[in-house]
Amino acid sequence: MIDPWASSSVDYDKLVNQFGIQKFSDLINDVENPHRLMKRGVIFGHRDFDKVNNLINKKEDFAVVGGMMPSGQMHIGHKMVVDQLKWYQDKGAMLSILIADLESYAARDMSFEKARDIAVNEYLTNYIALGLDLEEDNVNVYLQSKNDTLRDLAFKASKKTNFNELKAIYGFNQSTNIAHIQAPLVQVADILLPQLEEFGGPKRVVVPVGVDQDPHIRLTRDIAHKLNDEYGFLPPSSTYHRFLTGLSGDKMSSSKPSTAIYLNEDSKTAAKKVKTAKTGGRESLKEQQELGGQVDNCVIYEMFVYHLIDDDNELEKIRHDCLDGSLRCGDCKAKASELMVEMFDEIHDRQDEAREIANNLI
Amino acid sequence: MIDPWASSSVDYDKLVNQFGIQKFSDLINDVENPHRLMKRGVIFGHRDFDKVNNLINKKEDFAVVGGMMPSGQMHIGHKMVVDQLKWYQDKGAMLSILIADLESYAARDMSFEKARDIAVNEYLTNYIALGLDLEEDNVNVYLQSKNDTLRDLAFKASKKTNFNELKAIYGFNQSTNIAHIQAPLVQVADILLPQLEEFGGPKRVVVPVGVDQDPHIRLTRDIAHKLNDEYGFLPPSSTYHRFLTGLSGDKMSSSKPSTAIYLNEDSKTAAKKVKTAKTGGRESLKEQQELGGQVDNCVIYEMFVYHLIDDDNELEKIRHDCLDGSLRCGDCKAKASELMVEMFDEIHDRQDEAREIANNLI
Repeated sequence: MIDPWASSSVDYDKLVNQFGIQKFSDLINDVENPHRLMKRGVIFGHRDFDKVNNLINKKEDFAVVGGMMPSGQMHIGHKMVVDQLKWYQDKGAMLSILIADLESYAARDMSFEKARDIAVNEYLTNYIALGLDLEEDNVNVYLQSKNDTLRDLAFKASKKTNFNELKAIYGFNQSTNIAHIQAPLVQVADILLPQLEEFGGPKRVVVPVGVDQDPHIRLTRDIAHKLNDEYGFLPPSSTYHRFLTGLSGDKMSSSKPSTAIYLNEDSKTAAKKVKTAKTGGRESLKEQQELGGQVDNCVIYEMFVYHLIDDDNELEKIRHDCLDGSLRCGDCKAKASELMVEMFDEIHDRQDEAREIANNLI
Repeated sequence: MIDPWASSSVDYDKLVNQFGIQKFSDLINDVENPHRLMKRGVIFGHRDFDKVNNLINKKEDFAVVGGMMPSGQMHIGHKMVVDQLKWYQDKGAMLSILIADLESYAARDMSFEKARDIAVNEYLTNYIALGLDLEEDNVNVYLQSKNDTLRDLAFKASKKTNFNELKAIYGFNQSTNIAHIQAPLVQVADILLPQLEEFGGPKRVVVPVGVDQDPHIRLTRDIAHKLNDEYGFLPPSSTYHRFLTGLSGDKMSSSKPSTAIYLNEDSKTAAKKVKTAKTGGRESLKEQQELGGQVDNCVIYEMFVYHLIDDDNELEKIRHDCLDGSLRCGDCKAKASELMVEMFDEIHDRQDEAREIANNLI
């Protein structure tokens, strides 16, 4: 069972085999100008992405759903989702962005006011600063708690499932509070929302998520089917990405500053934090030269892959030089630190304007 | 266990003993100008009504909550609730009237549009025609599905309970659909709503209900306590009334025309239906004269008690004459029929104007 409310290390191949997730590598050749996260295997799995990809290639309508639970600070791990949303927006997607304030209330006891504040200042501001155009007509950004259409749809979805099914999917038990039991139905509605008449009716929707969110996808596909007669819903497609490892080698966390670099931190702090990251370096320089670095166990290398180096050849050279022992961790840290400062400077330059836009969105 | 979604015949004394409901007769002497339903034992039980009564006697603020599930036709049994609401309104209560369209969707698959239509034309129109003033400032009439404040409160309430508790109260099982599981939390919010800041903050609230609704009252009292820190809620008070028996001797039903007289039926039909009612008459006139009638097992007599005769002496005389065998069922039917026509004519005279008001309320 996959639990979307717990963190855990994940065996991605097992997921593909066990849960019917398809391998992204099997269709990467059909994707025109794939995102670097697709090419590099960070996006490793999907459900029915081929159906969305066909529409992209034919320049036909589709939608992408993204969102955030506004419960802490936005970090460079979250950036990955924004990068994907931007890729889809550039391909002509309708963009539906939810702010999961009902979930942050249910899961974290966070007031709606506080959730809105975090959503605007931590997330939406940086979404915009990272290049998403949220002012376009073809974009819907909303707070769950303020969206009546969503609540109606969640309620209707809730009639199509029962405690047994949610227990099987999420591992709920009889002591689970009812707000928590309702939360998945709100997520289901978030994913189905772009298919309502007011957004142009039934359409293909893709949801780029971490694999921890797959239970919501499966439940949504089931309920889409059950609501098909009334709404004509198509089952949503999804893609699954790996997570950027935390600085310390554990999970990157919104609430643990030693694990994450937050987008609202200044460039200097970001640069310093990069240098604390766990690398794949050996015990000694001598050993490193003899055995080569453990590149696939290196947070700095991950940062290159996910965020800092767009040129595949440059990345390949680093990988090669690390494995043959000629590259030293200190050099990589210095390079990553420098690139991170560039990225942060660019984000920060745009934040003031972005914050104003964000504030007017919701 | 009391199941608010099932109909059943009820042993009222057992309820008083088993569920901690207090006897209304113990405080009737403290009630100034009690409603005839109070004096006549139709309202037989309460929880904390003394606290509301003290405020009434001191002419201080309190609220009354009433409502309807808009799923069928309004009948003379429903009138009883309106009569009580009117009594409280005359005593200065803030009036909060909910239209349970979320529940009618969950329980009866009724669309929100259809529910609104029934609420306006069957219920609110007749509420107004029966003398409730719904245009006053101190009145809040709302559709659950359109009330964001209510939904927020229901959601917050849902965090304070779990499946175990709802199972114990309502007998839910694991196959119960999630919309149904959520429904009681909406009712809880309906009852707590008048205590929110926008309605003047924490206050005593009384909910006049049939005893089948007591599970909602108990759950609300529990959750009021759990939300006390955040909202300062007081536990709601309640009163419990018996139900008017259906014409055939079974339950009066919104959807079974042979059991009920509907307020939107014409006076002639109402008069005819009265004459089909089951009486407490004996097998033969001779037996009736010898043994007397079974007045407490007579739907016609119930109609006198609940609705048709306001004068206690007149009612007492009918009871006496029935019991001593001098009154014939045919005479009672004729009288009831005549009084019902008067009542219906009065209601119908007001319906056109009432319907216009009702239509503008929600």
